[in-house]
Amino acid sequence: MRIRLDLTYDGTDFFGWQKQRGKRTVAGTVEDAIKKVLGAEVVLKGASRTDRGVHALCLSVHFDVAASHIPPEKLAAALNMELPPDVKIMKSAEAPETFHARLSAKAKIYEYKILVAETPPPLFRRTHCVITPPFNPQKAADCLQYIIGTHDFTSFCYVDKTEKDKTRTITAARIINNGDEYVLEISGNGFLHNMVRIIAGTIIKIAKNAKCSPADIKRILEARDRQKAASTAPACGLYLKEIIY
Amino acid sequence: MRIRLDLTYDGTDFFGWQKQRGKRTVAGTVEDAIKKVLGAEVVLKGASRTDRGVHALCLSVHFDVAASHIPPEKLAAALNMELPPDVKIMKSAEAPETFHARLSAKAKIYEYKILVAETPPPLFRRTHCVITPPFNPQKAADCLQYIIGTHDFTSFCYVDKTEKDKTRTITAARIINNGDEYVLEISGNGFLHNMVRIIAGTIIKIAKNAKCSPADIKRILEARDRQKAASTAPACGLYLKEIIY
Repeated sequence: MRIRLDLTYDGTDFFGWQKQRGKRTVAGTVEDAIKKVLGAEVVLKGASRTDRGVHALCLSVHFDVAASHIPPEKLAAALNMELPPDVKIMKSAEAPETFHARLSAKAKIYEYKILVAETPPPLFRRTHCVITPPFNPQKAADCLQYIIGTHDFTSFCYVDKTEKDKTRTITAARIINNGDEYVLEISGNGFLHNMVRIIAGTIIKIAKNAKCSPADIKRILEARDRQKAASTAPACGLYLKEIIY
Repeated sequence: MRIRLDLTYDGTDFFGWQKQRGKRTVAGTVEDAIKKVLGAEVVLKGASRTDRGVHALCLSVHFDVAASHIPPEKLAAALNMELPPDVKIMKSAEAPETFHARLSAKAKIYEYKILVAETPPPLFRRTHCVITPPFNPQKAADCLQYIIGTHDFTSFCYVDKTEKDKTRTITAARIINNGDEYVLEISGNGFLHNMVRIIAGTIIKIAKNAKCSPADIKRILEARDRQKAASTAPACGLYLKEIIY
């Protein structure tokens, strides 16, 4: 039988999603809990492989198991008893054999949380990218029109050879403001490695720097050169918000 | 000369404000940084002594020092270089000799952050009191009318003999709602030991329990008996927000 889990985690103390020998990873931690509860060694397939330090508000995953002595919908509570405080299962359910956490995903939504403060506030150090003023929110918002749509995002992708086609479609992007906090919410059919963090880093650079303009995004996209975009923004500000099926 | 500092800290990994031998406290940590920067052993006087695990968005403190080779307004930046990531100085300034962080305080504002969730979300475990549904926000709000005003808060005070007069005035109280988050903001001329946490715990009990009524608060106040109020809500949800001078 196939089982779907919806997870949430604080990425601070994990070496990312993907299992790695000798490292504390989200996949490894959840697989260990499943082994304790169901007595079976399973392989989790996640909708996305979040990097070290990246958080998840809701990541959907699936695994196959011969049988479960616990009704699938009660598995979440049983697993949560075994899981550490920084990762929990919000929902568990039996899924059809046709469901695949990654391949069935139609879209993903990410959030990138920015806090503008003169002094880095201790209470936000694990959850936000904290930047000092100035930060021009109008310029940040004006960047989004150039991001939305179907583009070759080579300039906004970690330089690796594994991904050949770097064209992706961003269906929606907005910035939600609350006091000194600015949350970039971005939805798309797929995301390249570090794509949201490089977009966030570039928007921050443009919003901070009087010499930069939102139209720079267009120029950077057209260059298809990672060197043209700004630094990758820190992992602690990034949240995988939802997988849409 | 007298210097005033405005601090902010994540209380999670401190044994509270008050200096204690062999324990990591906020006062001890900041005094150590002052010793490194100014070369002087000073005694910090805080406006409030927060308990273990309680956070501060802004706590004002003062200390006296013979002289400072750093202009007082630049002391914040110099101290922040020495301080760990979980406590920072937002502002430093010379204060008149008549200023006393505790005795000059006219009012204090606290926040108590509650999150309602079926599964305790890892990302909120250090910053909120997480409770499971049900939670009736209208009943919680209706409790506040009985809290506001001048009352003998014996029922809402940790049982100790040190404080004789347990009459305090709550000048304002409200609940700010944002999605599943409910923030109790409470202002007053002074607060007894654990008072906000016992008020929060009692409001939570009333809002969760169909058999309880907001008017229970009145009955609990009149009883002047700690046993009549509910359990003290956890420290991680409490924030000292501001000291008013």
